[in-house]
Amino acid sequence: MNQSVVHHLFVPGFANPAGSPIRELFAYLGRPGMISFAGGYPSPSLFDAEGLRLASEEAFASGAGFLQYGATEGLPALRTELLALGATRGLAATPEELLVTTGSQQAFDLLVRVFVQPGDAVLLETPAYPAAIQSLRLAGARLIEVPMDAQGLRTDALAALLHGLPADARPKLLYTVPTFSNPRGSCLPADRRLALVQLAAEFGFLVIEDDPYGELAFTGARTEPLHAIGRRAFGAGNPVIYLSSLSKTVAPALRIGWMLGHADVVRRCTVAKQTSDLCTSPLAQSVAANYLRQGRYLQTVAAACAEYRRRVQAMADGLRAQLGDVLAFDTPQGGMFLWAEARVKLDAKSVFDAAVAQGVLFVPGAAFFPSAHAGFCMRLSFAAPAVDEIRTGVSRLALAMRGIV
Amino acid sequence: MNQSVVHHLFVPGFANPAGSPIRELFAYLGRPGMISFAGGYPSPSLFDAEGLRLASEEAFASGAGFLQYGATEGLPALRTELLALGATRGLAATPEELLVTTGSQQAFDLLVRVFVQPGDAVLLETPAYPAAIQSLRLAGARLIEVPMDAQGLRTDALAALLHGLPADARPKLLYTVPTFSNPRGSCLPADRRLALVQLAAEFGFLVIEDDPYGELAFTGARTEPLHAIGRRAFGAGNPVIYLSSLSKTVAPALRIGWMLGHADVVRRCTVAKQTSDLCTSPLAQSVAANYLRQGRYLQTVAAACAEYRRRVQAMADGLRAQLGDVLAFDTPQGGMFLWAEARVKLDAKSVFDAAVAQGVLFVPGAAFFPSAHAGFCMRLSFAAPAVDEIRTGVSRLALAMRGIV
Repeated sequence: MNQSVVHHLFVPGFANPAGSPIRELFAYLGRPGMISFAGGYPSPSLFDAEGLRLASEEAFASGAGFLQYGATEGLPALRTELLALGATRGLAATPEELLVTTGSQQAFDLLVRVFVQPGDAVLLETPAYPAAIQSLRLAGARLIEVPMDAQGLRTDALAALLHGLPADARPKLLYTVPTFSNPRGSCLPADRRLALVQLAAEFGFLVIEDDPYGELAFTGARTEPLHAIGRRAFGAGNPVIYLSSLSKTVAPALRIGWMLGHADVVRRCTVAKQTSDLCTSPLAQSVAANYLRQGRYLQTVAAACAEYRRRVQAMADGLRAQLGDVLAFDTPQGGMFLWAEARVKLDAKSVFDAAVAQGVLFVPGAAFFPSAHAGFCMRLSFAAPAVDEIRTGVSRLALAMRGIV
Repeated sequence: MNQSVVHHLFVPGFANPAGSPIRELFAYLGRPGMISFAGGYPSPSLFDAEGLRLASEEAFASGAGFLQYGATEGLPALRTELLALGATRGLAATPEELLVTTGSQQAFDLLVRVFVQPGDAVLLETPAYPAAIQSLRLAGARLIEVPMDAQGLRTDALAALLHGLPADARPKLLYTVPTFSNPRGSCLPADRRLALVQLAAEFGFLVIEDDPYGELAFTGARTEPLHAIGRRAFGAGNPVIYLSSLSKTVAPALRIGWMLGHADVVRRCTVAKQTSDLCTSPLAQSVAANYLRQGRYLQTVAAACAEYRRRVQAMADGLRAQLGDVLAFDTPQGGMFLWAEARVKLDAKSVFDAAVAQGVLFVPGAAFFPSAHAGFCMRLSFAAPAVDEIRTGVSRLALAMRGIV
């Protein structure tokens, strides 16, 4: 079987698939002294490794039972902790409305399987998380972009768009990261949240609320999740499916995410998960459950928030001082990302090449749009580099951009 | 959004999906004193919990780096160990031909995504692993059953079937568990292995060789994996994709599986995995890598084999003595399952109900066929219950069946 024989067997979407545009930047990371604002990774220095070690020790002290397969829905001990964690965010849910997943990426993937077949319309706020774009593309979804501004998804534009669609072209799903968006850094205000949930109910689509960053808030202000608003407004008819993850607050290596949603949706996603990976690693689930029960979680998240706040401040201060006339941006109030748009006309490839030459990496904005996008924009992550690296990186970026503008 | 509004959004395959027929038996497991031959679970008493605890301790002693996201392909340390483990089974592969997966269930699922669209023909030996049937069904595959006998897949029947198919109805994939099949317990002889690989090359389909049980061998005899035969016969044109798992030999809770196959296939499955769960838990991968490096693996597997051999012997002896005139079966030479077929006409539901009433559980054979199957058959797992429980369970089964025959 030579290559051509393998190749005719692939389904069309996989005949020549593009990998993640962000993972393709990894090649540059190996260059000596490179400072990266490109990754979407949390800072390992902020992981509570000692707490996780104790949680792992506790799992092994409990006997060999946790080394067996677990129920597809998730281990009871972790489910209890996640429902309690949800309650601290204002989320009410019954056990039938909860599914533990292998990262929130899997939760999204299961929803795509259960709801999307080729040609189905799906709404997507843009700029959007690239793996969501990729997943929907591979499923053959017809993507309808909803524009964002500094506050997040523009519900006025969404309303106009929905009213303009013929009834047989109605979307099934809308994907959004309302709180500290990746990549936009925006936090959707309460009035838009209500408007979004009402539009979903009116036009009969489900809102997938992806919330990995909500607890990484740098101010005391808290915004209610869409799921909570939808519950209050529509009870059991809540059109919001809530996804979250321990990857940004505890550790990515656990690959622990979860979904809260209508029991009929959760039941089907559970069937899809049976064929996907049977169950999420009970080892990782046990460690996560023990960790959450220890009570170190809140303090770990608070420490991460304090540090990320210092980092974003260093980045925003540096950009404003050195590139304020070139780049427009808002200082995010949480999350891991700062989104900048050029005030002037810039060639994306030239800027990227010049930045790499200066020793600093970012993600070009095109990665976050399913279609061509006018104007230069970029995502800068302030989560992984320390404050002094951020200062150096911003100076390098300024040098690179000054050489072009 | 009431129930009916959610419901019209599901794709057809998920409008009313059946869950796993085996997981539906779980309800009976809670009955006091029930002895179960139904599960497909290894015995937790055979897990090397102490070795895994040490492996976990070693991971946490290595610093916080392993708590971060990892490459989609798998952690380098685990990849090295899996290639070395493969070599002990006669498998040659380059790093580009290896993908670490979240259990071998995910490896199968990724292949289905990459190769199967609705209407595509897929060959399936039957009786077959139910989650494989379910996964292919949800993908809309057109399933073509290939019959098995006591030695496994009947390559004579496969050849006849393939020669009878029109050229435009050619299958893309064939799924098989050649070594200690689930549920058949059979081990495919060398001549049939070669015939199968040659048919794949001749007719241009890929063979998915699922091998979770190959090391659970109760005799000194070893059969070469299809992948090794295909490599020798066809070099880089090897039509075999090999899947395996640590779930049956180390612990299911790790959810560590892997795929060895053509680099072009592995590359596409890696893209599919990016949208599926980004990467397999690096915590679980680190524990697995450390465990394999410790050198306790072979001894653990040998201990499991010795115990499973005692268990299958107890089951086979009991069945032969008490039900030899009613049930026909071969004593498996490895794996976890014994397959029995009735020598007489029996009503499946009556036998199952009588067995439950006597306090013993098995999986009715219908669960392993995608279509209706004539004749009574059943899968009995000897892996989880201890020898004395097996003896009691077989006596209960005899009582139940004697009351019906």
